[in-house]
Amino acid sequence: MLTEDQAMARAVALAARGLGSTSPNPVVGCVLLDAGGEVAGEGFHAIAGGPHAEIVALTQAGERARGGTAVVTLEPCNHTGRTGPCAQALIAAGVRRVVIAVDDPTPDAAGGAATLRDAGLQVETGLGRAGAEAGNTAWLTAVRRGRPYVTWKYAATLDGRSAAADGTSKWITSEPARTDVHRLRGTVDAIVAGVGTVLADDPELTVRDISTGSLAGRQPLRVVVDSSGRTPQNARVRDSAADTWIATAAAVGAGPDGHVDLSALLTELYARGVRAVLLEGGPTLAGAFLAAGLVDRVVGYVAPKLLGAGRPALVDAGVATIAEAIDLNLIEVTQIGPDLRFTATPAEKGN
Amino acid sequence: MLTEDQAMARAVALAARGLGSTSPNPVVGCVLLDAGGEVAGEGFHAIAGGPHAEIVALTQAGERARGGTAVVTLEPCNHTGRTGPCAQALIAAGVRRVVIAVDDPTPDAAGGAATLRDAGLQVETGLGRAGAEAGNTAWLTAVRRGRPYVTWKYAATLDGRSAAADGTSKWITSEPARTDVHRLRGTVDAIVAGVGTVLADDPELTVRDISTGSLAGRQPLRVVVDSSGRTPQNARVRDSAADTWIATAAAVGAGPDGHVDLSALLTELYARGVRAVLLEGGPTLAGAFLAAGLVDRVVGYVAPKLLGAGRPALVDAGVATIAEAIDLNLIEVTQIGPDLRFTATPAEKGN
Ligand SMILES: NC(=O)c1ccc[n+]([C@@H]2O[C@H](COP(=O)([O-])OP(=O)(O)OC[C@H]3O[C@@H](n4cnc5c(N)ncnc54)[C@H](OP(=O)(O)O)[C@@H]3O)[C@@H](O)[C@H]2O)c1
Ligand SMILES: NC(=O)c1ccc[n+]([C@@H]2O[C@H](COP(=O)([O-])OP(=O)(O)OC[C@H]3O[C@@H](n4cnc5c(N)ncnc54)[C@H](OP(=O)(O)O)[C@@H]3O)[C@@H](O)[C@H]2O)c1
Repeated sequence: MLTEDQAMARAVALAARGLGSTSPNPVVGCVLLDAGGEVAGEGFHAIAGGPHAEIVALTQAGERARGGTAVVTLEPCNHTGRTGPCAQALIAAGVRRVVIAVDDPTPDAAGGAATLRDAGLQVETGLGRAGAEAGNTAWLTAVRRGRPYVTWKYAATLDGRSAAADGTSKWITSEPARTDVHRLRGTVDAIVAGVGTVLADDPELTVRDISTGSLAGRQPLRVVVDSSGRTPQNARVRDSAADTWIATAAAVGAGPDGHVDLSALLTELYARGVRAVLLEGGPTLAGAFLAAGLVDRVVGYVAPKLLGAGRPALVDAGVATIAEAIDLNLIEVTQIGPDLRFTATPAEKGN
Repeated sequence: MLTEDQAMARAVALAARGLGSTSPNPVVGCVLLDAGGEVAGEGFHAIAGGPHAEIVALTQAGERARGGTAVVTLEPCNHTGRTGPCAQALIAAGVRRVVIAVDDPTPDAAGGAATLRDAGLQVETGLGRAGAEAGNTAWLTAVRRGRPYVTWKYAATLDGRSAAADGTSKWITSEPARTDVHRLRGTVDAIVAGVGTVLADDPELTVRDISTGSLAGRQPLRVVVDSSGRTPQNARVRDSAADTWIATAAAVGAGPDGHVDLSALLTELYARGVRAVLLEGGPTLAGAFLAAGLVDRVVGYVAPKLLGAGRPALVDAGVATIAEAIDLNLIEVTQIGPDLRFTATPAEKGN
C-alpha cells in the first residue's frame, strides 16, 4: 500500500528517467493504485513519440485500474497528438480518481483535468507540485518562455581560469567531474558552443563514456554559433557521431553587433523541438548569453587549483561596474572528486 | 572530574584565545587537575611578555596543584625568558604528572620535559597532538621554517574577478564576509599588501568593526611591499591607527627582477617577531608569493556573482602550462552570509 503522497514521490522519480529524450514533450511519471491502494501499474514517458506515462501504467495494470487512482506528475493530455489523449484512456479504463501535481501550461494539451471531471472522475491537483515542477523545470520554463531552458556550464580553476597561459586546458577538472559533464549533456536536447571554442579546442561535443570513448545511444544536437561560417570542414563537431547545426548569421539573423542574434537562435531551436540547451562556452559566447539575460542556470565545475594566467571563464558579460554584477542564487555546492560543482540561478534583477 | 583527554581539549580551546597577541611566542593552554582529577586551575598565554599558561593555572590552583596533573598543549619552557621557566614552577608547586601534546621545537625553550622527568615527575607526551598542532599551525610552521606563516586572503566573484571593469570593488563580498576578514586580521602579526593595491584602493589595513569603524585594541603591523618607495605620503596606511613599514628594495634587498626580495622580506619580518602574516594582495604580489612557494594557506572569499571583466584575483603566479597549475588541498568550504569561504593549503609538489 502506498499513500498518494508516496505514490507521487515515486511518480516524480519515474518521470526523471525520461530527462533528455522526451523533448519537445515534458517528462511525466504515473503510478496507478488499485481500489485497495496497491500499486497496479507504473510508467514514465521515455521518448518523444513513444507512449505517455499514463498509457504505460494503464497497460501494466489491466483490469486492476478499474475503480483505482492514477497519480501523475503532469495533467493528462487532452489532445490527440502522436498518441491518443490520456484523459480518454483513463476514463475508458474505469479509473475513479486522478491526482495531478502540475497543470499543463500548453494550450493544445491542457484541459485534461476538465475532461476527467466532466466524465465524473474525482480530480485533485497540486499534490507534490514543488517536487514535480522541479523535475520538469527545463520543459516548464521553455514552454512558458517560448525558448529553450539554457544551462551555462563551465570548468575553471579557483581563480577563474579555463585554460593556462599557453592555452592548455586538459585537464583542469578531474575525471569524476568530466564524467558528470557527460551525464549533464545526456539531459539536454542541444549542446551549444561558440566558433571560438571550436577553432581553439576542436571539441567533439558528444555524450560518451570518457574512459572508453563509447558514444551514448542518444546524442543531443550540436550547435556551433558561427556568424560567418568559420567552422573548419574537418572540425570534429562535423563528424557523424551526432547531428550538427552550424548556426550562421545568414541562417538565424544577426544582432546589431553583426553576430548571430542569440534570441532568434533560441527561438529557432525551440521550433526544432529543443527544450533544454547546454551552453558550453567559450567565455565570449557565455558572456553574450548572460548579457542578453538568456541563461537560466549556471553549473560551474571548479578545480582547487590556481593558474594566475590564461583564458578567463567568462568575458564581456555586459557588466561595467560592480553595481551591475550578475547576482546568482547558489542552489547547491557538491564535491565531485577533488572538484566542486556549483549550481546557481541568476537572481531576478532588483530594478 | 575531567579525563586527561577532556582536559587537553579544553587546553587547546583556551590556547586559541591567545591567537594574534602572543607572537613571537606560541599560543599555549593549560588545565591543572588536582589529585582527585578536578579542575584546579586554567590558563592560557594571552600576550607576549605576559605570564605563560602554566603560571596562570598554577596561580589559580594554589595548594591544590600539589600531587596534581598539568595538562598543557606545548612542552613547558625550560629557559628563563621574560618570565621564569615553567618547568621549575611546576616542580616547585609539587605537580606529580605532566601531560604534553606537542614538543617545543625551539632550541632555547626545549628540554622542559627532560627537566621535569629529572625532577621525578611523570611526563607523558603526544596526547591530543593533532588538535594542539592545528591550533598552533602558524607558530609551529614559522619556527620550523624560520619565516612567518603566510596566509593569502582574497575576495573575488565566482569567475575570479576582484574588481569590475571600471575598477570598482566595493563591495564584492557581503558584510558578514568582510567582518570575517577583520576577525582573520586579528589573528596575525602583520598584514602585507603590494604598493599597487595601496595606489589603487588606498586601504587602511587595520582591524576594526566594519559597522562602527572603531579600531581593535591590538593592530597588526602594516607592511607595504614597495620596491622604490612609491607609497604616497597621505596614504591611509601611513596614518596613526597602526604601525606601518614601507618595505623598500633598499631596506630589504632586491631579487633578480629588481623588486623586493620576498624571501628576505619574510626573514626580516621573522626577526621582528612576526610569526603569522596575512597577505592581502593585490593579484601581482600574491602571484609573486605563490611563484616563490611562500604561501602556506589560501583563504578565498567568493561571492556568487559574475563580472566577466575587471581585475583578476591572481596574476603572474609563475604557471605557464596546465601541468604546472598550483594544486590546493581544500580544507574547508563555509557559507558566510551569501558568500563562500574557501580554506586551502598548497599541495606538496609531486616532483
Ligand atoms: N588564438 C587566437 O587568436 C584566438 C582568437 C579567439 C579565441 N581564441 C581562443 O578560443 C577560445 C575560446 O574563445 P572565445 O571566447 O572567442 O570562444 P567562444 O565564446 O566559443 O566563441 C566566441 C565567438 O562566437 C561567435 N559568436 C557568434 N554570435 C555571437 C554573439 N551573439 N555573441 C558573441 N559571440 C558570438 C563570435 O565569432 P563570429 O562572430 O565569427 O561567429 C565569437 O568570436 C579561447 O581559448 C581563446 O583564447 C583564440
Ligand atoms: N591604473 C594603473 O595603471 C594600474 C597599474 C598597476 C596596478 N593597478 C591597479 O592596482 C590594483 C592592484 O594591482 P597590482 O596587482 O599591481 O597590485 P599589488 O599586487 O598590490 O602590487 C604589485 C606591486 O608590488 C610591488 N612589488 C614589490 N616587490 C614585488 C615582488 N617581489 N613581486 C611582485 N611585486 C612586487 C611591485 O611594484 P614595485 O616594484 O614598484 O614595488 C608591483 O607592481 C589593481 O586595481 C590594478 O588594476 C593599476
